[in-house]
Amino acid sequence: MRIIDDRTGIDVIERDECLQLLRSTDIGRIAVVDSGHPVILPVNYALDGELIVFRTAEGTKLDAALHGGPVAFEIDDADRHTRTAWSVVVTGWSRLVTTPSQTERFEALGLRPWSSNQKDNWIVVHPERISGRRIVALDDRRS
Amino acid sequence: MRIIDDRTGIDVIERDECLQLLRSTDIGRIAVVDSGHPVILPVNYALDGELIVFRTAEGTKLDAALHGGPVAFEIDDADRHTRTAWSVVVTGWSRLVTTPSQTERFEALGLRPWSSNQKDNWIVVHPERISGRRIVALDDRRS
Repeated sequence: MRIIDDRTGIDVIERDECLQLLRSTDIGRIAVVDSGHPVILPVNYALDGELIVFRTAEGTKLDAALHGGPVAFEIDDADRHTRTAWSVVVTGWSRLVTTPSQTERFEALGLRPWSSNQKDNWIVVHPERISGRRIVALDDRRS
Repeated sequence: MRIIDDRTGIDVIERDECLQLLRSTDIGRIAVVDSGHPVILPVNYALDGELIVFRTAEGTKLDAALHGGPVAFEIDDADRHTRTAWSVVVTGWSRLVTTPSQTERFEALGLRPWSSNQKDNWIVVHPERISGRRIVALDDRRS
């Protein structure tokens, strides 16, 4: 099934394909609210079922904001040549992983942090809503 | 000058290079706060001096949140082969462009929206802080 908004040229990406896309890459951006201001940062993540998991450095501002707060997580890709782009946005709640069995489970996902071996905290995002959209440049649409 | 944090493997990207990187691409992600929740969305943008400008569709939730609210804007790139990545984050305030002279100025930047010709509102982000970081995978550092 393909759902196209004729006015905007935007295709809705169904939930199953959103999850496929989330499994297809490992770099996304997490947004949180800190004192009423949005904070955004790229993270190296893995998917465990429908849970998004990543590591943060303990004691940082981001780390604190991720202990129970509402989050938005985004992945995207664009092809400038064909002028097509897609994005998947997950909104939900973050949680610090505190049980050793869960930590072990996430360690086993094989997520290699790029920057530091000091990222001791595992954060898990519980999705409440997963949505995706694909944009096909107006001139190239065959709808 | 190169500032490297030996503990984390993170290079600080100086302001001038952040601006160069902002000029080098045209797709970023904007994060805003809506009823206490973070909202994140990719946008097709242009740089006018140090101002980030892009279009939104009038009447959308994002559009409303961008009339004067605090925002975070992010661009990034990663090379999985060399395991290096960089990101630039701009935090500041958004404003709806209402004067015809400014609208004309931004129209002249040549920003072609990918999705829709219905994106009538120009939004400008006034940066308060511009920061960047580059990550070189731990094993490959020559610091």
